[in-house]
Amino acid sequence: MGHSNVNQIMLQSKIAFDQYKKTKPFERASFLKMIAACIEKKREALVQVANEETNLPVARLNGEISRTTGQLNMFAALLAEGSWVEAVIDTADDNRTPPKPDTRKMLLPTGPVIVFGASNFPFAFSTAGGDTASALAAGCTVVVKGHPAHPETSLLVYEAITEAIQLCNMPQHTVQHAAGESNALGRDLVIHPCTAGVGFTGSYKGGKALVEYARHREIPIPVFAEMSSINPVVFLPETITRNADTLAQQFVASLNLGAGQFCTNPGLMLLMECDGLNNFLSKIAKATDAAVPQKMLHKGIHQSYHNGVHNMLKQDGIALLAQSVQLPVEMEAHPSVVRVAASAFLKNRTLHEEVFGPYSLAVVCNNKTEMIAVLSSLKGQLTGTIMGTENDFENHRDIIEMQTSLSGRVILNGAPTGVEVCASMVHGGPYPATTDGRFTSVGTAAIKRWVRPVCFQNFADGLLPEALQNNNPFGIWRLVNNQFSKDAIL
Amino acid sequence: MGHSNVNQIMLQSKIAFDQYKKTKPFERASFLKMIAACIEKKREALVQVANEETNLPVARLNGEISRTTGQLNMFAALLAEGSWVEAVIDTADDNRTPPKPDTRKMLLPTGPVIVFGASNFPFAFSTAGGDTASALAAGCTVVVKGHPAHPETSLLVYEAITEAIQLCNMPQHTVQHAAGESNALGRDLVIHPCTAGVGFTGSYKGGKALVEYARHREIPIPVFAEMSSINPVVFLPETITRNADTLAQQFVASLNLGAGQFCTNPGLMLLMECDGLNNFLSKIAKATDAAVPQKMLHKGIHQSYHNGVHNMLKQDGIALLAQSVQLPVEMEAHPSVVRVAASAFLKNRTLHEEVFGPYSLAVVCNNKTEMIAVLSSLKGQLTGTIMGTENDFENHRDIIEMQTSLSGRVILNGAPTGVEVCASMVHGGPYPATTDGRFTSVGTAAIKRWVRPVCFQNFADGLLPEALQNNNPFGIWRLVNNQFSKDAIL
Repeated sequence: MGHSNVNQIMLQSKIAFDQYKKTKPFERASFLKMIAACIEKKREALVQVANEETNLPVARLNGEISRTTGQLNMFAALLAEGSWVEAVIDTADDNRTPPKPDTRKMLLPTGPVIVFGASNFPFAFSTAGGDTASALAAGCTVVVKGHPAHPETSLLVYEAITEAIQLCNMPQHTVQHAAGESNALGRDLVIHPCTAGVGFTGSYKGGKALVEYARHREIPIPVFAEMSSINPVVFLPETITRNADTLAQQFVASLNLGAGQFCTNPGLMLLMECDGLNNFLSKIAKATDAAVPQKMLHKGIHQSYHNGVHNMLKQDGIALLAQSVQLPVEMEAHPSVVRVAASAFLKNRTLHEEVFGPYSLAVVCNNKTEMIAVLSSLKGQLTGTIMGTENDFENHRDIIEMQTSLSGRVILNGAPTGVEVCASMVHGGPYPATTDGRFTSVGTAAIKRWVRPVCFQNFADGLLPEALQNNNPFGIWRLVNNQFSKDAIL
Repeated sequence: MGHSNVNQIMLQSKIAFDQYKKTKPFERASFLKMIAACIEKKREALVQVANEETNLPVARLNGEISRTTGQLNMFAALLAEGSWVEAVIDTADDNRTPPKPDTRKMLLPTGPVIVFGASNFPFAFSTAGGDTASALAAGCTVVVKGHPAHPETSLLVYEAITEAIQLCNMPQHTVQHAAGESNALGRDLVIHPCTAGVGFTGSYKGGKALVEYARHREIPIPVFAEMSSINPVVFLPETITRNADTLAQQFVASLNLGAGQFCTNPGLMLLMECDGLNNFLSKIAKATDAAVPQKMLHKGIHQSYHNGVHNMLKQDGIALLAQSVQLPVEMEAHPSVVRVAASAFLKNRTLHEEVFGPYSLAVVCNNKTEMIAVLSSLKGQLTGTIMGTENDFENHRDIIEMQTSLSGRVILNGAPTGVEVCASMVHGGPYPATTDGRFTSVGTAAIKRWVRPVCFQNFADGLLPEALQNNNPFGIWRLVNNQFSKDAIL
């Protein structure tokens, strides 16, 4: 696909945007629900094609389709409720010196958004995934760059979207699909002047490349790339003494879930010397021995995982703790847990890198001070987990605080994998977990990536957007003269 | 000042941040109010020194001090009310398959912030200005890079801040002051690993330089630079026919206010051929003739203004409409309005540039289509204004829409100068008006520049930040299971 085609796609997207941004919230809500319904109708075919293209098991794919339609319906509900636009109104005061003007603001969509499909979520983070759903909800048009690892799945989902566009009478080019292996296609989409934002979930290298492309624009745009995280899990002394078996089982299950192909996969364990340490590590080893190798998404990822583990095993001070006894065949990943002393970890930045797959590194610290040094040395993370008893947490509040500084989501006594889709979720985190830790790509707040506030000063009521009109036609929550209210303004 | 000094300042700021971020909202509110009180105590001295350093008149400086203390008190009130942290809570559901975890999120401060003082607002956008006040309110520490054009004023304000730090028992290095002409100082502050954000108001060149410095960091940080805007004012046909005199008086008053040294100065007038056009332009000329030259801030700005106007007058198709009859002396600026046809404006990007001072360019369009072409050609703006009658607005909704797409604030029948400090204000706008049009540097929402959301999953109540605890100790508005509420969670 050459640049001229990209130009046509983006001009079409801009023209569609100028129409689509004027749709009413309830119209966009119906549209999102219709996309969900059209996907549901194709469920069987989608699962079959995706299973062939991604090696992900049928049960997982069915679950992921439900998550995808759930996300679309969640944004429809957000639009129906309507308060997400953050309407703020300060009414005029003519008696003040100088007179105070009437000012009202709300969030408005920014323009065409490029969504890069992710290989590890062929539905929930791809063609009609969270990025697309949130952008459409915001009032932005979307151009999907389908992931080359599941081209047929992507096109089949796109068919469902185009069906919904027709059924809901939305502008023809509200969503477009640009498929192709080529990096040049991605670059051309990102640098096009009509593009207003970019959503990406993938590797650090991929995300960084998009940011670099965006830098060459005359007008910079936000690139929301979710890139790289090793998701440190701290195991505190009392809990590993008391609950070694359960914790080890849970941890290795989370590690090997979906062949470890999750952004929130726990790639780092932090432990400190204590009575229960050796016993706990032996339980981890035992659980890892018993893990069953899973097929990975595609050859490239499989090869990278194999090379990644191999490279880690060559590093100074690294010892293999365990690998699954069942040997991997074909494109399966070998679940692997390795061990290193904190002093060696602190000296070698290679050990801080992500190995995408069922790999985890256990870093053993001499004491809490050394664990704090290790946490201080880490880059930004999507998640930080702490396993502990009540006593453990009481004695390690500083460790909880450090994990909070590092990451977008802090979990106590749970697995980082399994990201709840809800209003309070933060699937984001300081760089390089994402390019912008102020936003999330999961949950209703994901819509905030595609909007900006505009203030309307001294507007007659009829010229204002409905959300800001006196009688509050949508019945939304608004901040009126510094008070939250659903009331009309008299 | 060498790099080692910057290193010490930033390490001190980071250590102070780790303390300051733990202060309670009411403690930070008292601190902000105390800064305001300490500034108020020095009012007379501050006005005198600033008057000598900036040439701004005493009345204006008194007003600006009131605005500055008003901003500090506004953020204190925001903290006291408390809902700004955007607390969102989704409670657990153990009966769901899989069980739904308890997740709660809120905004937390990001770290030490560098504030660059602005030359044109020695108080309200400088040492204890809106950037500093919003960062301190958020829980961030601040390092102020004082503006070299008002060094004594900056230090005197800093004295007031240090007094407040002592009186409120805040960490010693909560606010620090780094003075100096050198660009290297600014660079070293921006690139230091401890720095988490940057606030700047000034020129496009200055803002761009800071963004470039930030790019060389290993970990990117947000740079909020408010840079460059020509603030187009559209005059619609019916109103210029009916209200020529008043409109012209108001416009030139806004243009020449403070020697035109406002980011929101109306540097561009858009008009279309109509019966009233020539009469209106003659009124503009008459008002400009009568304008009184004002002293500019410093020699550099004065020279730039002089050169800027001179350069514009050399461009193809430009005609001088009027300059004040009273000739400027010393460092005064010569109020100047020039005129050009839309066709020439569209061909020459130089005409789109800002000339900082009391200069405006009247672009005459043949018709509405040409005016839309001119608006389409403009870069992002802080403000867009439309002057019109009811009929005018009804007939030019597309013009209002274009101004909305272009800018952070759209004004009907008002002056862009005079930025109201309130919750609904947007002093921001698409690039290059600012580096990030999703944020504002004026009003309560300015606090959002220095925070990021963090999600707490499966936390025992006592381990949660107070804003997220079940009994809602601060009594703030929270989104609980998708419903806004101030209630405790049972």
